Amino acid sequence: MKKNAFYAQSGGVTSVINATAAALILESKKHKSKIDKVYAGKNGILGALNEELIDTSKESISAIKSLRSRPGGVFGSCRVKLKSLKENKKEYERLVEVFKAHNIGCKKLGYPINCIAIPKTVDNDLAVTDCCPGFGSAAKYIATSTLEASLDVASMSETSTKVFILEVMGRHAGWMAASSALARKDKNDPPHIILMPEVVFNQRKFLTKIKDTVKKYGYCVIVASEGVKNTKGKFLAESNTKDAFGHTQLGGVAPYLSSLINKKLKLKNHWAVSDYLQRSARHVASKTDLLHAEAVGIYAVRYAVKGMNGVMPVIVRNKKKNYSWKIEPAPLSKIANVEKKIPKSFITKDGFNINSKAINYLRPLIIGEVFPEFEEGIPKLSNLKLLLVPKRLKKWSA
Amino acid sequence: MKKNAFYAQSGGVTSVINATAAALILESKKHKSKIDKVYAGKNGILGALNEELIDTSKESISAIKSLRSRPGGVFGSCRVKLKSLKENKKEYERLVEVFKAHNIGCKKLGYPINCIAIPKTVDNDLAVTDCCPGFGSAAKYIATSTLEASLDVASMSETSTKVFILEVMGRHAGWMAASSALARKDKNDPPHIILMPEVVFNQRKFLTKIKDTVKKYGYCVIVASEGVKNTKGKFLAESNTKDAFGHTQLGGVAPYLSSLINKKLKLKNHWAVSDYLQRSARHVASKTDLLHAEAVGIYAVRYAVKGMNGVMPVIVRNKKKNYSWKIEPAPLSKIANVEKKIPKSFITKDGFNINSKAINYLRPLIIGEVFPEFEEGIPKLSNLKLLLVPKRLKKWSA
Repeated sequence: MKKNAFYAQSGGVTSVINATAAALILESKKHKSKIDKVYAGKNGILGALNEELIDTSKESISAIKSLRSRPGGVFGSCRVKLKSLKENKKEYERLVEVFKAHNIGCKKLGYPINCIAIPKTVDNDLAVTDCCPGFGSAAKYIATSTLEASLDVASMSETSTKVFILEVMGRHAGWMAASSALARKDKNDPPHIILMPEVVFNQRKFLTKIKDTVKKYGYCVIVASEGVKNTKGKFLAESNTKDAFGHTQLGGVAPYLSSLINKKLKLKNHWAVSDYLQRSARHVASKTDLLHAEAVGIYAVRYAVKGMNGVMPVIVRNKKKNYSWKIEPAPLSKIANVEKKIPKSFITKDGFNINSKAINYLRPLIIGEVFPEFEEGIPKLSNLKLLLVPKRLKKWSA
Repeated sequence: MKKNAFYAQSGGVTSVINATAAALILESKKHKSKIDKVYAGKNGILGALNEELIDTSKESISAIKSLRSRPGGVFGSCRVKLKSLKENKKEYERLVEVFKAHNIGCKKLGYPINCIAIPKTVDNDLAVTDCCPGFGSAAKYIATSTLEASLDVASMSETSTKVFILEVMGRHAGWMAASSALARKDKNDPPHIILMPEVVFNQRKFLTKIKDTVKKYGYCVIVASEGVKNTKGKFLAESNTKDAFGHTQLGGVAPYLSSLINKKLKLKNHWAVSDYLQRSARHVASKTDLLHAEAVGIYAVRYAVKGMNGVMPVIVRNKKKNYSWKIEPAPLSKIANVEKKIPKSFITKDGFNINSKAINYLRPLIIGEVFPEFEEGIPKLSNLKLLLVPKRLKKWSA
């Protein structure tokens, strides 16, 4: 019997999560005997609870294909974590109610369902998978931006800015900061200092390193993870900076470091915070990353129609000299609640950089360009209808 | 008699200033009867004072052409302003000494020279010229980034970030902030609020506008010039925020606004500061801007060989329905020390946006893409020799 499929985005979005959605929707059309329509939850799982199901079958094929170059989450995402079945049975009962009403199912509560989780995160911190879709594009953006800004700083350093700080995302894992090292062609090239949450911040060594770097090259480029912590385990961004009202200021490891450099070294400096720009920069996405994102979408459908459940299609790197990869299923139980940080073996002895082993891991992930189509000077977006399936149930309240 | 030409970059660099240099060097080769070599000052005018002249004739044609896609100032720039001839005759005498020694000249001190100034600034605030090379590419970067980040925020707004703030450059003129409006296809699209230095910041109206926008669209995107001032004429970025040491924090209108929104509206928000990224983002440069940058380089040479002096090649917009432009010479006296701000007629009544007249002016400047070549996942850079001409004079000290 034909079933409808339910697709929901969750948590922070990426510049290629919609590419996963597009690939999944298009692949579903190849399995018409098993999958009827793909319903996308409006704002992720909230769409299921609220019975707000977007009928993707109402979209044209070209509209679906256009998602390949649209950053953000077109159906909406959410930061909502369902509690366990024990803790909040009511929520699960509602999900089953909605799924039943719209011909979607759930195994545990007497309704057949196959649940496939699809990887995505710019943080690149999921276990088992070699890398996470979304990360390669953020990494390419960071490497490109670091390269470009470094050329700017180098031009001006004789009489103006000596130190430039770029703050990137990464609360617990420093993969994004580390990827700035891909801007280097030569080992002396910027970035000169990379601050990762995996390494405790040592103020004295940090300031010495800046002084030495400016002396040697005339300028110093620093890329810092938002999640860098001091010896007391506190985020630098929160540790010292208060606004005029006495409130601790949100975010801002870059302004913190800038202030420190002003005070202790009196070196003119500039800082940038890339925030959402880095995770939505589809205009400079990595082709490798985009292909990963599409592949996991395609395999999610294949696993579902095979009747697999509780698995994730993960990216496996083949053990060959030239980079190649494949998709394999991995049990969710091995992935959930594990955080993959940068291993010590990737970090240089002084803690301010990554080594060639890390570069060899990272480099393939940013290879290739897939520029979006531009219209009127900006990336072209297609309009989607985003029509909701007519409701059949009563309004939900938690 | 054949002379050498001297070329110096000055002040803040752009993503296309090297394209101007490349066009100028290549055009010079077409006037071999008048121009022998082009010497580039190392770090701008400092190169002349220090007799550090980079011999561009030693570079291969392909290396010069590669400058078309290299951001920053490849010969180095500087923030040094020569005083008037009256105030510091010694400096001018040194320049003449260096110019004489290397077959370059100076009219006022008995040596024939033609001085041509070439426009460049991401601030777009030069008088007479319709626009400034460097601006169009920064504007394209800002419009693209605003579009992409807005899609991200829109996806998450139901349960997470409601307000996003992007801080852009512009100390006195808001052209860069205004260009974020080019991200819009429809009048209701983000950015919802643009803060320009031309409009005094009104906190009450600002907070009300955010509240109304979040109510209407679920989220609010703000683009703010670093130079926004309060009613007392003080930069917001400096007005209230102090670090833990009691020092006024440098930069940061975005964290200031974030802090304000936290306190007064309690709305979850995120902020980004694009800083040097926006002015070096050659990877998303505007083709129109690049063509402008090249044309002013070419015309600078043509004016010089014609014997013109004290002029600037400016961009003139033809008065036709479809955008077209030409280069004309304008006297420097009309350009120096004048700042072209956004006219009132471009700004909406509430002061938070620009109107269709402004859009019509701005849109053509970001049209067209000229992606650089990528290698190993990042923009490809060619190596230049940057060889100095052997010195003939004693060391200079100011």
